[in-house]
Amino acid sequence: MKIALVAPSCTLKPEAAELVIALAATRNDCELAIHPQCFLSDGHFAGSDEQRLGALREVMADDSVDAVWFARGGYGSNRIAEAACADLSAAAKAKTYLGYSDAGFLLAGLHKAGCEVVHGPMPQDILRDGGDKAVARSLDWLLSRDRAGIEPSLSFPPQAYNLTVLSSLLGTALEPDLSGAELLIEEVSEHYYRIDRLMFHITGSANVRGVRELRLGNMSDIPENEPVWGSDEEAIVREWCDRAGINYGGRAIIGHDVGNRIVPFGRN
Amino acid sequence: MKIALVAPSCTLKPEAAELVIALAATRNDCELAIHPQCFLSDGHFAGSDEQRLGALREVMADDSVDAVWFARGGYGSNRIAEAACADLSAAAKAKTYLGYSDAGFLLAGLHKAGCEVVHGPMPQDILRDGGDKAVARSLDWLLSRDRAGIEPSLSFPPQAYNLTVLSSLLGTALEPDLSGAELLIEEVSEHYYRIDRLMFHITGSANVRGVRELRLGNMSDIPENEPVWGSDEEAIVREWCDRAGINYGGRAIIGHDVGNRIVPFGRN
Repeated sequence: MKIALVAPSCTLKPEAAELVIALAATRNDCELAIHPQCFLSDGHFAGSDEQRLGALREVMADDSVDAVWFARGGYGSNRIAEAACADLSAAAKAKTYLGYSDAGFLLAGLHKAGCEVVHGPMPQDILRDGGDKAVARSLDWLLSRDRAGIEPSLSFPPQAYNLTVLSSLLGTALEPDLSGAELLIEEVSEHYYRIDRLMFHITGSANVRGVRELRLGNMSDIPENEPVWGSDEEAIVREWCDRAGINYGGRAIIGHDVGNRIVPFGRN
Repeated sequence: MKIALVAPSCTLKPEAAELVIALAATRNDCELAIHPQCFLSDGHFAGSDEQRLGALREVMADDSVDAVWFARGGYGSNRIAEAACADLSAAAKAKTYLGYSDAGFLLAGLHKAGCEVVHGPMPQDILRDGGDKAVARSLDWLLSRDRAGIEPSLSFPPQAYNLTVLSSLLGTALEPDLSGAELLIEEVSEHYYRIDRLMFHITGSANVRGVRELRLGNMSDIPENEPVWGSDEEAIVREWCDRAGINYGGRAIIGHDVGNRIVPFGRN
């Protein structure tokens, strides 16, 4: 099976690429094709919009590629996502796409376009302490649909997003249809007051109010609030779900950490 | 003329209140009524949601009050804005409401409810270097509709928002109708990548695409981007306007600074 790596947001660290290549080499079922675009750098991004879009569309159109694995997050896939998801070839529609965090813009657009998309660990996660297990979880899913890595309490059909990414999707051409979905959210490095504002925003959406339930993944590295906030992320999420009449379904094992489990959108 | 101060977001600093009282005392046309709620503190906020909403609704219902001046921004008016704007009395509808930044949630909701709302300096701005001039500009508008303080290039009907606040309004019950409006935006303390993501979000909205033109106020205290971003806020705003087919109308004199001019929504 051939898995192509592209970086629609920020530049992949070479040491992460080396570790993922070594990990893949321990298996005989996996051919990794790391697109050179992953190592480009143009300001904030892994190359210009044209370079990132070009590499992504190239691997999407390649019949020999079975899956596209987004190399890392950061910021920037939204700048090319609408173009990436337009006029998809049969080859593009036949692939699986895997990533999370900023790659959520692409997960949303590709899911909407009818592709199989999966929320899960990305190659750069291998640099986390214990990150090899996280990255192996994604490989196990892509290579053998190993259900051991799936988020353990999933009910179907699920969708999972970074909270800021979901907020930024609402009202755009990439906005996912969430009606009847199990919605999982996660966040990293946002203050409580920002989490509160984001929850105000997403739970004010008629689309989000149509979910079957909302579950809260990890919200990690929350900077200190000044003054002290006085509650926590679960209290915030519960409150806004309550206000909006959304079923709060408890915690979920996704997030910016090595525990980040697999969430295959809309699959059973 | 009686102007009531309430704090729907964060706590007003007592030294700001004293300076504004002193400034108002130099004029014989102004009675300031600083609601004690302005000095409450409950975690991040100037009192609980109930206390902030109660004080706001109290002054809105008061026939003796001509204008409501939001004491400062921060975060939190969104938590009470929908309730604040529901079932308005004739007394509430007859008043003028003035503020900016986080108070934009209330400006949006009250404008939508048919009230006269104005984007302009707030009492706590008096603590800025030269802030007395900014605060006097708001008083001059409230007391005598002094056109000298109006944003000099306004065309009508204008609306002005903090960019993050506008993004957070989209899709909620408070979302303003922007069709045909001159839209002014400003921002403070957001990284370039966040400004870029916010512009992606707002220009992806059909409502925002219906504006007559969009103008860019001050975006101040932009934290350093890592890696270096490579352009600036005007290039970002221009690009997203261009992508979305929105007329970019140039710079505007609003923002988190003492130059912040008066923008009376929808007035001529």
